[in-house]
Amino acid sequence: MEKPAQPTAKPGVKAATGRGINARRPAEAKLAELKQRLLEISELESVSSVLSWDHATYMPEGGAAARVRQGALISRIRHERAVDPALGRLLGDLTPYAEDLPDDSDAASLIRVARRDFEKAIRFPAGYVARASALRSAAYDAWTRARPENDFAAMQPYLERAVDLAREYAGYFAPYEHVADPLIDDAEEGMTAAMIIGLFSQLKQHLQPLADSICAQTDPRANCLQGFFDEAAQIGFSLSVVKRFGYDLARGRIDKTHHPFCSKFSLGDVRITTRVCERQFGPALFAAMHEAGHAMYEQGVAPELEGTPLGSGASFGVHESQSRLWENLVGRGRPFWEYFYPLLRDAFPDQLRGIELESFYRAINKVQRSLIRTAADEVTYNLHIMMRFGLELELLEGRLRIKDVPEAWRQRMKADLGIAPADDRDGCLQDVHWYGGVAFGGGFQSYTIGNILSAQFYDAATKAHPEIPNEIAKGEFGMLLGWLRTRLYRHGRKFTPAELVPRVAGAPMSIAPYVDYLRRKYSEIYRLPGAGTVNQRQINAPAR
Amino acid sequence: MEKPAQPTAKPGVKAATGRGINARRPAEAKLAELKQRLLEISELESVSSVLSWDHATYMPEGGAAARVRQGALISRIRHERAVDPALGRLLGDLTPYAEDLPDDSDAASLIRVARRDFEKAIRFPAGYVARASALRSAAYDAWTRARPENDFAAMQPYLERAVDLAREYAGYFAPYEHVADPLIDDAEEGMTAAMIIGLFSQLKQHLQPLADSICAQTDPRANCLQGFFDEAAQIGFSLSVVKRFGYDLARGRIDKTHHPFCSKFSLGDVRITTRVCERQFGPALFAAMHEAGHAMYEQGVAPELEGTPLGSGASFGVHESQSRLWENLVGRGRPFWEYFYPLLRDAFPDQLRGIELESFYRAINKVQRSLIRTAADEVTYNLHIMMRFGLELELLEGRLRIKDVPEAWRQRMKADLGIAPADDRDGCLQDVHWYGGVAFGGGFQSYTIGNILSAQFYDAATKAHPEIPNEIAKGEFGMLLGWLRTRLYRHGRKFTPAELVPRVAGAPMSIAPYVDYLRRKYSEIYRLPGAGTVNQRQINAPAR
Repeated sequence: MEKPAQPTAKPGVKAATGRGINARRPAEAKLAELKQRLLEISELESVSSVLSWDHATYMPEGGAAARVRQGALISRIRHERAVDPALGRLLGDLTPYAEDLPDDSDAASLIRVARRDFEKAIRFPAGYVARASALRSAAYDAWTRARPENDFAAMQPYLERAVDLAREYAGYFAPYEHVADPLIDDAEEGMTAAMIIGLFSQLKQHLQPLADSICAQTDPRANCLQGFFDEAAQIGFSLSVVKRFGYDLARGRIDKTHHPFCSKFSLGDVRITTRVCERQFGPALFAAMHEAGHAMYEQGVAPELEGTPLGSGASFGVHESQSRLWENLVGRGRPFWEYFYPLLRDAFPDQLRGIELESFYRAINKVQRSLIRTAADEVTYNLHIMMRFGLELELLEGRLRIKDVPEAWRQRMKADLGIAPADDRDGCLQDVHWYGGVAFGGGFQSYTIGNILSAQFYDAATKAHPEIPNEIAKGEFGMLLGWLRTRLYRHGRKFTPAELVPRVAGAPMSIAPYVDYLRRKYSEIYRLPGAGTVNQRQINAPAR
Repeated sequence: MEKPAQPTAKPGVKAATGRGINARRPAEAKLAELKQRLLEISELESVSSVLSWDHATYMPEGGAAARVRQGALISRIRHERAVDPALGRLLGDLTPYAEDLPDDSDAASLIRVARRDFEKAIRFPAGYVARASALRSAAYDAWTRARPENDFAAMQPYLERAVDLAREYAGYFAPYEHVADPLIDDAEEGMTAAMIIGLFSQLKQHLQPLADSICAQTDPRANCLQGFFDEAAQIGFSLSVVKRFGYDLARGRIDKTHHPFCSKFSLGDVRITTRVCERQFGPALFAAMHEAGHAMYEQGVAPELEGTPLGSGASFGVHESQSRLWENLVGRGRPFWEYFYPLLRDAFPDQLRGIELESFYRAINKVQRSLIRTAADEVTYNLHIMMRFGLELELLEGRLRIKDVPEAWRQRMKADLGIAPADDRDGCLQDVHWYGGVAFGGGFQSYTIGNILSAQFYDAATKAHPEIPNEIAKGEFGMLLGWLRTRLYRHGRKFTPAELVPRVAGAPMSIAPYVDYLRRKYSEIYRLPGAGTVNQRQINAPAR
């Protein structure tokens, strides 16, 4: 009844065949074993994702305690397999084999990336994983209570532990140039604090004057986005848009949650979530477009990479480039709304009566100094990120004390955004990220890297196919999606960002297309003087 | 940062304390280790349940292939832990300790039941688990295609494999009296084929004449249940009923699926599902009540048993007693509808216009010879089960050949139900159970055992609290639920059915209350002559 086991080379056959084949045979068997081991690690990650997705969508409140235990157990089993010495030996044995293959072949990439993952994973102990996971769960629960109470003191011990854990993690990778480097490397392989400091300081020089000159203008009226927008109709419209983008619903679905996310369980099951506020049009649709960007990236990874460490996006920042490209470059663009605004008015005729396309377009692109990062517009969003990245570095370096965070937050907001929160609820308690340690020192910078790359990739796509904006204005996205699939999505995690960006965009990462995009778009909306192309040489990102 | 490890007894401390304490200390430490190991096994079962629940509710079609792999992986990891020799040693070491404790104490029950589970699990190899799981997945897919095509030939190889697997499984437990015994024992610990044959032959003597005399009557009109019943309204009404029963929605929820089921992820998360047909009232509500019966049982298990092998229902049959009790004894009873029919008419005023309570009550209790087991009424349902149980025994014994199953099915249906299917679609292909081998020889009998026990338990409850029917007629279920929780639910799996039934009902399993219930109810509905109490001595179930 049992299927025959994988055929093994008989000694007789081995002796009879040529030397070259003999030498390769064991490597191929080892590669098959490697893939089997990596598949199980990947399946365990998917199982964790199913548990988290359910937690965030349908789980009744009574399920939380056991779900945390279940998630921790699967993570522990996954970690045990990821650091199994037998996996290490297999990777060691296969390295010479990989070196004989072209660098960009699937097999060479697989062995190279899996080896890097393994060498990272064995640096830190299983106890670290358990403690980090426990902090994340505990901090989330504490934060949901502390934020409404404006109670930073309650969160201070969590932030202390989060910073300690981040420093402990960095310690496993010593020596390093900057304590944040090992954390940054996890999100953006090959990048360092020094590189990001340079990048951000250039970007800031362009963004701050732009934000200042816009905020000196009179506000476009955005209250056309207020009213009553039925939940089912908002979800229905969002779904029609992301389907049109090319998000495959036979391999996905949309559900409601508090903090929208995209979750992959397999190449055939990549789900998105959104949140709906019936008093406002916007958040549900833009969240759906954002998550669909992530999801189309994952749905576009080459099937032969599925179930391996190569079977997902290249980095946090490259992933974010796709969510931002579809949400902002496409979804907040004029061509998009030329096609979709009439459809939106069909869906909400009373709410949008008398509001012309131009007013609507300005309303969804309103720029203002605001307190909450996740609700910030395209221009000021990065100022939030840069401020937080700066504070993170100071915390990790030990230059900023935990107890001084609320005051430092207010001062920095005032300096960078020109506005300061009245309380910590809208200040350093506004999101949970820091306290759970999830993204600590290894996450926020990627949002801005994603923004930079979104414009660079879109620029490259429209240079290759100048008709893309016209297609979008006809509600057609196949040309853009096809280009992204071929140039970017299918490669999964075969390449590091530094290897990948030139393959996609023809040049290393550069802030020029992004600054240029923001200047053009917002100079036109806000009728700013001197809108033009920026000097390419001045604003190249630091090369790697 | 790391929490101190569990304190271990220092040799010095050990020497200093008394002998009694010394002798107990290691047992208590071992009990703690046992619980930790069992907790992980239980959590892995919960993880499998989450994967299956999602598969059956929200998973897009593209997710199926990977989900089967993910489920198989978790099952394999669970099995490895369940047969870990270290677990066996721990159980062996703890047995003398358990023998010093009262038999019905939690600790003694835990060690006893965990040991029985372990001794079963080590009898069959991991390869068997994998093959059984592979057959289940493959058969389900094949059946979804073969049933609409009426293609028994396509399913024949699966049925052959299912019978082979069932016989192989029995072989691991040889010697046995009957080849079905090891399979039956898995569902109803302590029961055998001989016991069930005796039980069913008695029951059939009562049911067949009852069915015959009913079916000789004119049909009550049931078409008042046809019409258009909006999905959301049906789910809303079902939810209002099961909440009123006492199903705790802070620890549960309801979702749609094709084949309704109840799923437990933890004591705080026990979910039900239902299916909705908008052209008919009935299926959605009765499925919800049925699954809520299962769910209230699981929600009522004592919290101290959570995460152990004692933390769920006693057996398949005892579980089914609760789904049937709430669906039929309560939910198809006149007192229930005295309260709920006016509410139902409020929910569906147009559809139920002019239909009085009495007509409605008769329509939901219509008895008729029918082809599909899952849609059968209370009286004929068990005739389906008994027929299938008989065919299963013949298949397992090798007396019935696989290829002869369709013809045997038709003959037996004609003989037992007085009706035969025109094709296999409504005959031996009507459900997937046999082909996947899931319940083969170890499942169907439990449905009828559940029916028998449902009446016996309800009878005991109303003897203890004669006001229960009046409470139900006021929409109050607290007295019934409270009695069931105290007598039955809280014990979880501490006792075998033979140990448990006398604790709950005051006597061993007996068909008398069930036959009596059916006779009274249907004699009244169908105005049969000679409705009265049956002779207790004639119809006691075979004692264990």
